[in-house]
Amino acid sequence: MAKGATTSRGSGRNKARDAETLKKIERLAHQVVRTALAGDEPRIDIPTRAKSNTIWNKKRGILEMGDATSDRPLFDLKTAKQFMQTMLHAGTIKDLIDAAKTSSLRGVFYKAKHTISGTKENTFDAQEESDPILEDLEVTLGALREELHVFAENRGSMVGNITLIDKGDEINCRRMGSGGYALPSIVEPDVIQFGKCEAKFVLHVEKGTVWNRFNEDRFWEENNCILTHGAGQPPRGCRRLLQRLNQELRLPIICVLDCDPWGHYIYSVIKQGSISLAFESSRLAIPDAKFLGIRAKDYKECELGEAVKIDLTENDIKRAKEIAAYPWFEGHKGWRKEIQGLLNNGFKMEVEAMITKDISYVTEEYVPARLKAEDWLE
Amino acid sequence: MAKGATTSRGSGRNKARDAETLKKIERLAHQVVRTALAGDEPRIDIPTRAKSNTIWNKKRGILEMGDATSDRPLFDLKTAKQFMQTMLHAGTIKDLIDAAKTSSLRGVFYKAKHTISGTKENTFDAQEESDPILEDLEVTLGALREELHVFAENRGSMVGNITLIDKGDEINCRRMGSGGYALPSIVEPDVIQFGKCEAKFVLHVEKGTVWNRFNEDRFWEENNCILTHGAGQPPRGCRRLLQRLNQELRLPIICVLDCDPWGHYIYSVIKQGSISLAFESSRLAIPDAKFLGIRAKDYKECELGEAVKIDLTENDIKRAKEIAAYPWFEGHKGWRKEIQGLLNNGFKMEVEAMITKDISYVTEEYVPARLKAEDWLE
Repeated sequence: MAKGATTSRGSGRNKARDAETLKKIERLAHQVVRTALAGDEPRIDIPTRAKSNTIWNKKRGILEMGDATSDRPLFDLKTAKQFMQTMLHAGTIKDLIDAAKTSSLRGVFYKAKHTISGTKENTFDAQEESDPILEDLEVTLGALREELHVFAENRGSMVGNITLIDKGDEINCRRMGSGGYALPSIVEPDVIQFGKCEAKFVLHVEKGTVWNRFNEDRFWEENNCILTHGAGQPPRGCRRLLQRLNQELRLPIICVLDCDPWGHYIYSVIKQGSISLAFESSRLAIPDAKFLGIRAKDYKECELGEAVKIDLTENDIKRAKEIAAYPWFEGHKGWRKEIQGLLNNGFKMEVEAMITKDISYVTEEYVPARLKAEDWLE
Repeated sequence: MAKGATTSRGSGRNKARDAETLKKIERLAHQVVRTALAGDEPRIDIPTRAKSNTIWNKKRGILEMGDATSDRPLFDLKTAKQFMQTMLHAGTIKDLIDAAKTSSLRGVFYKAKHTISGTKENTFDAQEESDPILEDLEVTLGALREELHVFAENRGSMVGNITLIDKGDEINCRRMGSGGYALPSIVEPDVIQFGKCEAKFVLHVEKGTVWNRFNEDRFWEENNCILTHGAGQPPRGCRRLLQRLNQELRLPIICVLDCDPWGHYIYSVIKQGSISLAFESSRLAIPDAKFLGIRAKDYKECELGEAVKIDLTENDIKRAKEIAAYPWFEGHKGWRKEIQGLLNNGFKMEVEAMITKDISYVTEEYVPARLKAEDWLE
């Protein structure tokens, strides 16, 4: 491939977005400088990312961030360091955008980490201090991490009846063998565009090992769909791609997750968003995502044996009750019943336990039958 | 794609291998039955997978399993359960091969897990009991896990100047965008074949986030190579693919890992194999793999700042000394010096710390200069 390809990768759309993000950073910097020059105390108002400031928008079906903000003044022992850290990261992001490059969360941490000259004080001691400052910048600037040119670990993969364009490369997901297309962390429209798509829905499974079973059985070909997994709790890149497939291509997102509080929580995050990322639910949440299984009723309905049972722990029971109290589950008859069913059973069931019926029971009988009957929770 | 494609996926090669594995399983079963019918005690001799039975083959440069075996008789309270578990898993594997399907480790566990009728005794209580039994079968049958149709989690991805054929699908790794080709768990020649390859070497990096930096900077295009990562300690699929690229296409495998005991250990496993999988070093180890960096000397040589330092913990120091005592490091002047350098520094350095010099310092200056100078450890 010619080197010129790199140029075509920086599309006009990207540049416009970058220019806007840069303007936001400069506005923040100017405001601080202006205040300082006027002899006043520099301070930043940061929207509060906490449960107390998270609102369940029933109409939209997503979690949203409220209006509460917290003040971060420079001349305060409690906030002075964070103020400095916020400015350092804003500087790094400006550098990244200027260079038209992206960095990992860890890279941003290193970029800003140093010992302040003449002292033994580090700007940052650990990445755990650094990541929340980046989230602060996201909400303060009103720009997503992707727009700040920062990525996380890549996780998850994809096959199915769709073609993607990824940085100018055509990815035919119908011809991705046993491995599949590895989902990147940044999947915004300037990086990933959708090409031809025959698929009628997306089947999203929890783990790569389950995904392998569905891919080996060519489920996506038999059932004309796209097959994805997010290696557990799907990372932002995977969630954002699912949302784009849902909103832009109108594909239903149908989840096959474990019948346990962790599976329910994964679904909850895919559907309504999470408290920690409530500020970007409108870019990540998929309110009409469906939960096909595994369902508490399946033990009887599918005549599963003892082998599928894994006893609920004390902690599972506690988590199940917490999840049942989420307003979006509490007000939902089907979900109340589902979680109660799990508690009544007293055991969890994993998707992989379906192998006890037959190697391909889950791909050839269970999921197709439920799809046909439209038997799912939403 | 037509359904017929599935047929072309089951190649003759695969069938021959499967027939051989089946024969081995049947031989094991016949032996047990024969002994029982003769009124003798059924027992299996299982090669010992332990440090005590691991031999460093200096000439070949790999770890190998010795000749020690341990007896697993049926009529012994200590081994009766394991005997039964071994037979159950052998049965599952026969079913998988008969069905021409593969299963995850967890699937195999579920397939065999049940309560023995009339008792409260489970065949298996947890997957931790199940995985070692599969490894026992691997060594007893002399068949790799891949040959037993069992896969692990998929991890790692790949881009670069090569075309692969994966189950009949042509994967052009030069056109995989920002995401890349997701490495599958089973990469044996009947699944993955190599097509056109211009690449002159493989650059293997530790983490997906580092891989992103190299892919974004089109390192593989600039330097005519293949770029892989294994998401930390590379899983078997990734190691086996690297070995095949090394042996079949004669590509040097050049590693860029963190300067810490974990990075050294990853390199050690890639190069010589591991104690727990010593029985398949000849299929996984890459004795001529090279360690390009990060090197202990880089702090001074690259004029890195304080920010890159992460203090060694007590545990790091202990691990570093253990690794230094591995015979393949102990007898290697360069590695003795390298580990001593790490200990003398008193701090670790991650690949991502190179960002403190410049965003693309690692891809545009550091690695190209070291490649040119052939400055690496091997």
